[in-house]
Amino acid sequence: MGYYPKALERLVLELGKLPGIGEKTAQRLAFHIINLSEEEISSLTEALTTAKTKIILCEKCFSITDKDICDICGNPNRDQQTICVVQNSRDIFAVEKTREYNGLYHVLHGAISPLEGIGPQDIKARELLLRIGENDIQEVIMATNATVEGEATAMYLGNLIKPLGVKVTRLAKGIPIGADLEYTDEITLIKAFEGRNTI
Amino acid sequence: MGYYPKALERLVLELGKLPGIGEKTAQRLAFHIINLSEEEISSLTEALTTAKTKIILCEKCFSITDKDICDICGNPNRDQQTICVVQNSRDIFAVEKTREYNGLYHVLHGAISPLEGIGPQDIKARELLLRIGENDIQEVIMATNATVEGEATAMYLGNLIKPLGVKVTRLAKGIPIGADLEYTDEITLIKAFEGRNTI
Repeated sequence: MGYYPKALERLVLELGKLPGIGEKTAQRLAFHIINLSEEEISSLTEALTTAKTKIILCEKCFSITDKDICDICGNPNRDQQTICVVQNSRDIFAVEKTREYNGLYHVLHGAISPLEGIGPQDIKARELLLRIGENDIQEVIMATNATVEGEATAMYLGNLIKPLGVKVTRLAKGIPIGADLEYTDEITLIKAFEGRNTI
Repeated sequence: MGYYPKALERLVLELGKLPGIGEKTAQRLAFHIINLSEEEISSLTEALTTAKTKIILCEKCFSITDKDICDICGNPNRDQQTICVVQNSRDIFAVEKTREYNGLYHVLHGAISPLEGIGPQDIKARELLLRIGENDIQEVIMATNATVEGEATAMYLGNLIKPLGVKVTRLAKGIPIGADLEYTDEITLIKAFEGRNTI
């Protein structure tokens, strides 16, 4: 990189820190960026800064928001007795896209992972239990990832919540819609068989 | 996207304008960015702004640089009688990586493309001819892309330069190193046969 102008080298370095952006992509982006107009650049940098300063966590569900209470928690038309527990704020937007779920959420900001030294105290687990204790909750849907960590977290929290007399459910596992059986991994297939329904 | 905080929505939009960044990637980047520290954000935005303001085009070869004359044009150890003509500044860095070429460059900033309405007047063609006329150039290596536009540009410029008594060459075409014949497209194979060498 010694033959790059310094300012370009630094931009490639900064862009390369972003997730999923390798050196090649960082270079491509950098070369694109130096050809943008000054207005376009300032529009981009302002969006970066504003996103950082304006976005906070909802006091109730810990999802990202630009208000104290997020739009979902603050919406009286949502079912206040159901909480869908997810690992990250992004998961909320994935569920919302389905337009099928009308309850509330709780963002754990992670999952229990003994291997990585992440315990229940490192995620918003205590806050979930407090929230269930203080409100009239009928069902908690564990929508953590279908990974070892996601499963462990769902199991752990489920065992703490069930004694409170609250129904705890877990999202179904199976073959993704549109997928060929042929290309489905065996663990998913096993889960799909286990979870088979009468038609 | 209606359930995104506005500042996040705008960031996703801005990031999505970058080349090769689709909506999914823009979302992933945006969620990463709002979790960065303020120092990390300002480091990134400053790199963006500085790259834009500091980087200019070399007066001689039109490559990107942060000085009036780029490091290559200003290096007396480079062969001053050979010019390698490329479409973009990025191509220079690709050639420099080989550490095999020691001459100068000329960046056209595009290629002739009648279909897109790009003619010789839209690229640094006149500047190349002037440069050849004013300096003692022995060889001009056409290193434009192996595309229709790159070939057309090399042919066009070659026909203008040859009458000046300057040797004009073109990079070889053939099978890329490491590639299987089986997976090489037929046009490349034809070129590889045409350009075959005695061993």
